[in-house]
Amino acid sequence: MKFTVVNGPNLNLLGLREPDLYGSLTLKQINQRLEQRASELGVELVFFQSNHEGDLVDALQKAGKETQGVILNAAAYTHTSVALRDAILCLEIPVIEVHLTNPQAREEFRQKSLIAAVCQGTVAGFGGASYLMALDWLALYKRE
Amino acid sequence: MKFTVVNGPNLNLLGLREPDLYGSLTLKQINQRLEQRASELGVELVFFQSNHEGDLVDALQKAGKETQGVILNAAAYTHTSVALRDAILCLEIPVIEVHLTNPQAREEFRQKSLIAAVCQGTVAGFGGASYLMALDWLALYKRE
Amino acid sequence: MKFTVVNGPNLNLLGLREPDLYGSLTLKQINQRLEQRASELGVELVFFQSNHEGDLVDALQKAGKETQGVILNAAAYTHTSVALRDAILCLEIPVIEVHLTNPQAREEFRQKSLIAAVCQGTVAGFGGASYLMALDWLALYKRE
Amino acid sequence: MKFTVVNGPNLNLLGLREPDLYGSLTLKQINQRLEQRASELGVELVFFQSNHEGDLVDALQKAGKETQGVILNAAAYTHTSVALRDAILCLEIPVIEVHLTNPQAREEFRQKSLIAAVCQGTVAGFGGASYLMALDWLALYKRE
Amino acid sequence: MKFTVVNGPNLNLLGLREPDLYGSLTLKQINQRLEQRASELGVELVFFQSNHEGDLVDALQKAGKETQGVILNAAAYTHTSVALRDAILCLEIPVIEVHLTNPQAREEFRQKSLIAAVCQGTVAGFGGASYLMALDWLALYKRE
Amino acid sequence: MKFTVVNGPNLNLLGLREPDLYGSLTLKQINQRLEQRASELGVELVFFQSNHEGDLVDALQKAGKETQGVILNAAAYTHTSVALRDAILCLEIPVIEVHLTNPQAREEFRQKSLIAAVCQGTVAGFGGASYLMALDWLALYKRE
Amino acid sequence: MKFTVVNGPNLNLLGLREPDLYGSLTLKQINQRLEQRASELGVELVFFQSNHEGDLVDALQKAGKETQGVILNAAAYTHTSVALRDAILCLEIPVIEVHLTNPQAREEFRQKSLIAAVCQGTVAGFGGASYLMALDWLALYKRE
Amino acid sequence: MKFTVVNGPNLNLLGLREPDLYGSLTLKQINQRLEQRASELGVELVFFQSNHEGDLVDALQKAGKETQGVILNAAAYTHTSVALRDAILCLEIPVIEVHLTNPQAREEFRQKSLIAAVCQGTVAGFGGASYLMALDWLALYKRE
Amino acid sequence: MKFTVVNGPNLNLLGLREPDLYGSLTLKQINQRLEQRASELGVELVFFQSNHEGDLVDALQKAGKETQGVILNAAAYTHTSVALRDAILCLEIPVIEVHLTNPQAREEFRQKSLIAAVCQGTVAGFGGASYLMALDWLALYKRE
Amino acid sequence: MKFTVVNGPNLNLLGLREPDLYGSLTLKQINQRLEQRASELGVELVFFQSNHEGDLVDALQKAGKETQGVILNAAAYTHTSVALRDAILCLEIPVIEVHLTNPQAREEFRQKSLIAAVCQGTVAGFGGASYLMALDWLALYKRE
Amino acid sequence: MKFTVVNGPNLNLLGLREPDLYGSLTLKQINQRLEQRASELGVELVFFQSNHEGDLVDALQKAGKETQGVILNAAAYTHTSVALRDAILCLEIPVIEVHLTNPQAREEFRQKSLIAAVCQGTVAGFGGASYLMALDWLALYKRE
Amino acid sequence: MKFTVVNGPNLNLLGLREPDLYGSLTLKQINQRLEQRASELGVELVFFQSNHEGDLVDALQKAGKETQGVILNAAAYTHTSVALRDAILCLEIPVIEVHLTNPQAREEFRQKSLIAAVCQGTVAGFGGASYLMALDWLALYKRE
Repeated sequence: MKFTVVNGPNLNLLGLREPDLYGSLTLKQINQRLEQRASELGVELVFFQSNHEGDLVDALQKAGKETQGVILNAAAYTHTSVALRDAILCLEIPVIEVHLTNPQAREEFRQKSLIAAVCQGTVAGFGGASYLMALDWLALYKRE
Repeated sequence: MKFTVVNGPNLNLLGLREPDLYGSLTLKQINQRLEQRASELGVELVFFQSNHEGDLVDALQKAGKETQGVILNAAAYTHTSVALRDAILCLEIPVIEVHLTNPQAREEFRQKSLIAAVCQGTVAGFGGASYLMALDWLALYKRE
Repeated sequence: MKFTVVNGPNLNLLGLREPDLYGSLTLKQINQRLEQRASELGVELVFFQSNHEGDLVDALQKAGKETQGVILNAAAYTHTSVALRDAILCLEIPVIEVHLTNPQAREEFRQKSLIAAVCQGTVAGFGGASYLMALDWLALYKRE
Repeated sequence: MKFTVVNGPNLNLLGLREPDLYGSLTLKQINQRLEQRASELGVELVFFQSNHEGDLVDALQKAGKETQGVILNAAAYTHTSVALRDAILCLEIPVIEVHLTNPQAREEFRQKSLIAAVCQGTVAGFGGASYLMALDWLALYKRE
Repeated sequence: MKFTVVNGPNLNLLGLREPDLYGSLTLKQINQRLEQRASELGVELVFFQSNHEGDLVDALQKAGKETQGVILNAAAYTHTSVALRDAILCLEIPVIEVHLTNPQAREEFRQKSLIAAVCQGTVAGFGGASYLMALDWLALYKRE
Repeated sequence: MKFTVVNGPNLNLLGLREPDLYGSLTLKQINQRLEQRASELGVELVFFQSNHEGDLVDALQKAGKETQGVILNAAAYTHTSVALRDAILCLEIPVIEVHLTNPQAREEFRQKSLIAAVCQGTVAGFGGASYLMALDWLALYKRE
Repeated sequence: MKFTVVNGPNLNLLGLREPDLYGSLTLKQINQRLEQRASELGVELVFFQSNHEGDLVDALQKAGKETQGVILNAAAYTHTSVALRDAILCLEIPVIEVHLTNPQAREEFRQKSLIAAVCQGTVAGFGGASYLMALDWLALYKRE
Repeated sequence: MKFTVVNGPNLNLLGLREPDLYGSLTLKQINQRLEQRASELGVELVFFQSNHEGDLVDALQKAGKETQGVILNAAAYTHTSVALRDAILCLEIPVIEVHLTNPQAREEFRQKSLIAAVCQGTVAGFGGASYLMALDWLALYKRE
Repeated sequence: MKFTVVNGPNLNLLGLREPDLYGSLTLKQINQRLEQRASELGVELVFFQSNHEGDLVDALQKAGKETQGVILNAAAYTHTSVALRDAILCLEIPVIEVHLTNPQAREEFRQKSLIAAVCQGTVAGFGGASYLMALDWLALYKRE
Repeated sequence: MKFTVVNGPNLNLLGLREPDLYGSLTLKQINQRLEQRASELGVELVFFQSNHEGDLVDALQKAGKETQGVILNAAAYTHTSVALRDAILCLEIPVIEVHLTNPQAREEFRQKSLIAAVCQGTVAGFGGASYLMALDWLALYKRE
Repeated sequence: MKFTVVNGPNLNLLGLREPDLYGSLTLKQINQRLEQRASELGVELVFFQSNHEGDLVDALQKAGKETQGVILNAAAYTHTSVALRDAILCLEIPVIEVHLTNPQAREEFRQKSLIAAVCQGTVAGFGGASYLMALDWLALYKRE
Repeated sequence: MKFTVVNGPNLNLLGLREPDLYGSLTLKQINQRLEQRASELGVELVFFQSNHEGDLVDALQKAGKETQGVILNAAAYTHTSVALRDAILCLEIPVIEVHLTNPQAREEFRQKSLIAAVCQGTVAGFGGASYLMALDWLALYKRE
């Protein structure tokens, strides 16, 4: 089984970007932790990050063809991208929306997610562990 | 370590209530599954359910004195209760907001959570597994 | 056949409360008039009143198990209670929303009913007769 | 005693129009059922239907001069006609707003009634029986 | 010189309709007073009243061909009719919006005029004198 | 095959009305051009224009009985008429919404169409050609 | 009989200010024309202009003590001044709101008048003649 | 003379709850200070606190029967409870709304009070002294 | 110790202005009552009233230099003046917002206070006693 | 004569994506049908599709230099892209907005088009035929 | 060449007022820095500050007669004054809106400028340098 | 010292695009003027333009590593891009928002800037000079 982990704009700067808010973990470190957990669970992960909305749409389309689930942190595009929403609607595999922080506790415009309604579910507010919890669901709990 | 699992109004009817939407699992079955996972993780769970907003406030105050974390499905009160929000603000232990379904995919008035902003994080849309994922975070991932 | 008549907050003060607006009939007098009509129609009535939102949720759950229809004047909770809405959604018996006065002719916040959309229908503005008309429908006209 | 039954736009197509929503009863059949009930109650009915807002205003003005009460299903004009509202304000006889379905359970723009606030009361959601309940109130319960 | 006086829905009931609000003058009396003033000013008046939005549109189109100015009390249609607005836009003669009462002092939905922006001007709140002031402008002050 | 062309308020003044906005073509000229194209396509056309909302509802009801498709320019009623929306919902034949200009480029209140959601489709902004394109679809492209 | 004519901010620049919109008449010329009409009507006028909201409040208070009516063009303060509204509420003499142009045909924020609801009536859109029409009402038509 | 002091949800945690915001005074200490001032003023106090909306409604109904005034800190229910508003409307004794902090300086949803409009007055922002000031008014200044 | 009492627009007319709403006490009488209470408390008062927003800003700036607290009834400017808000923000002494009536029970636009959020607290709805209660807090309760 | 056909995000999945909504036609099949019609009309077509907003802006700029008209289905970007709107504003050739489905019949956020107001016109709701109708206008009807 | 520098309410307290937000520079120091730069550029400056909206209107009218450009920091009146907007509209010389801080980063009500739309341009967020940059444009860059 | 000048979508067409609005200066000419001023000030400039939101995010990230300040005209993305806002939040160097025209004087949707609140400041409305003024601040005035 193979899942795609898709990260949106500015997440490449994680650890450097507003560390008070996002913590000091880099994206690389989160990915390593995910790799380790994936190997415990016997699943394979594909990683993708881009600052480009169109690249993320392309990546979701590709994920739908080649993998069995998506862990998606769309970052800023969560709140503005109908294109990502439509891309998810085209997929037949589950997409999990994850966030490091809790968007409901931030600016007004971050409190509306255009993609939440078309995702399987949401895990938000647990820092890097948000990704791990999503992975566990895809690999462990989904069958329940 | 001990956590409280707090369930709000009408969740006592789970399995009977709108099964197309909420699934056929009863609250009892979800709790059994949680008990089992808790014993694997070596933690203890306290369960509480009520249809009364005030009871839930009381329960949260009690949880703050006697346990180390809360898994809270406030159901309908999620969207209307400032009292629950204030009760969470009084606690010094983490509170995880869980939902069986994805409220963002439902009626307009379910798309605003009054408690999300004051919880540690949110897990929504995974049916009974939402509770398990929250439990795992409290017991496993929180230290990361 | 048995129906439940559920009355919400402050209706226990009927006749005393703002008589210019609500008339001088007490809740007891309305219930007597309902009893009398019920016995003409050969049906049985159960009465319940509470100022507590949670009690009303409990009462609706009980009504769903023990009776065949509900006449509900949720009073103030009409406009604020998602919990009552969800409780009605759990029932498989018809619930009729009744009001003594016409909420559309009052304050802005009384012009939105959170429960109307999930009730069978609404009878509003006829004073105590609103209850009688709802009873007639449950007992007489429902089959048409 | 004589009452006027006023039906608004597209109700002439009842039974044909969206039968899943409005049922298979035609307006003629509803009127026959009303006639029958009226004769039981010893009252006389006048029927009027039009697709024209202005005709409905004219009809209400006439009803105010020649009859003692109005049963009004303004259909689409319920939500858009200040002219009907003003016409009702000119009357000294009671006007009952009726609807076959429950407008609160439909599109946003059907959830606001411009006429409810100036009617005696509302009966909505009971199909053809909504008219019968309004008739019963005018003939039976009004004196209470 | 000839002007058209156009009156909208329910103004035929003036004097009878809510006399506390609109006064006890009938439309006929207002028209007589206008006739008298018109003959002093040496101008001719054409009168039209209807409860039908379409009739008012027809009347405005006709007025544009046969007379040199319009005094328009669109009553309820003031607040809902884009059709009247468009009809006024088609005219090359001045249209004066008049109201007996001051709509700004009434319900929220009467505080927006769809036609004001396309009229020459507005005279509101002076009872029957609103019409006279509009007539004076058309006949006396327009040239200034 | 026979289609109905329904035109709403003030379109009888086309060519005269705000020519900068609507062009100098009269409705008669548009209809002649439609007749010519219809005869090329071997279909028959029925024309109807009225300034009365109720007449347009009547015409749609009639069109549904006697013809196989409707080309509808509801003009001002596009933005205010729930009655037309309901009339379209009663039809089992396709209704095409057409506009000479592009309502999205005009006043705020013209940017919402109450009928678009219940029409087959919309053709707007092409002047008289909007009607021709709608006709072509009904006669040529519909089968694709 | 004596009336006060109160003019608000920037009206001292009339004739210079945006002449396309407001015309080339100066405030002095309007006042002369008013003086002349007043002497025909046998009434006396007091003139006041200020750019200061507080001065206008003072002037209204003074007018209420010394004169029998007010013609008020509050200009920009029309849309922002609760203080002027309250000052008018303190008066026992009629206040007529006048405007040179038609505020409904201008920017959104000019379409709401905070003072209209507490004035006797409004005359808007007739240029300098708006003042004359208000004067005529105070002197001639008020008794009707 | 006897007054009731009613405290709403989470106020039992005062002193512990967000001390930066609410200060370190406990509810017990505030009540002692009130008792002391009451004895100086020669009046008697009854204290009630609950986290339950329904209990607070019950308490207000009881206060209306047994005491001569109410000091009410409805806390979170201030912003959400129509039931409390209605309970106050049923009382014939004065109810004073008090708050420790200034709700206008906090979150948007705390800036609307559903009960303010039906209370005698409001004292907010003075910490524990808000209660004392309300008491002084009931006992000292009310007669002025 | 010295405090400033600042009164805004139209309060100079107190007793004359809408006596049903504001009572028959004049501002002079309120000030005398305040003087008397101040001398009991051993504090000195400075009084200021103006209809000019700018004068009130000047007065607040002066109060901040020469006195130790402000009792402010900004009247109409409460709802419109950002300038007063900023003036209060510049002060290092406490400012108490007072109102004779309860603004929450009045027009929509009086329900928002631009200054409440930057004042120490609010006392509203107690007529002239609102000022006395504010004075008591400044002189008596502030230390608690 | 040469026109550009520009397709936005996720349209490359047409036929696969939500076939109940969008039909089973692929983009390739639509393009073939367009090619065929173009050759009948003697015009040339250039095709472009991208999931990237910036690519679509680039493509529009290029189309403006090299072709004489644009058929644009901006898909999701219709509702969010000011950049596309600005790109269209830079062009001197007509741009036709097309949609397969009728956006007015879908989610709220799809009911606002940021580009409609700057396009020549809109053709929506006719499936693949929407493109053909736009092509016909560019090639046939534009001259009328 | 001569320019006017107009400063609005509370700016006379600069350096004292909220120094964390506005810095420790006094208005006098800013003006000295401006004088110095003006003499380098060979232009003359006139300074004006007032807490009174009306004074600022007067000052703008005067500036329009005697100088060739205005640097305007309207402070609080930026967000509430239609009178200042109208005063600017009367001028034929450029007005530059300046702010010390960035209003977009502050309270909601500071994010709307009523005057921006009628100014030549805006310079905001650069502290005292905002004025210098505006001066440079008036003296140096305007001709480009 | 080195600064980056970042230009957003469609600015490559400057001089061609809506010249009435944006002037006839090309981006190349603006850049030359900036180069010249930069050399006078002894600073170096890097230029970047793209129609792609993601490219602009990449460019800002690069600028943050290699240069000491950014002059950013985000054009259309100003109003829609949370991604750019987040990219700016990641930078530790000042970003100046510039606009050629004054967005406050244009369409409603251009009056909200998503990036203003996180920029150092804004310079808008001065055509090409907006860039020069931003450059001067970075090079000259920043130290003050």
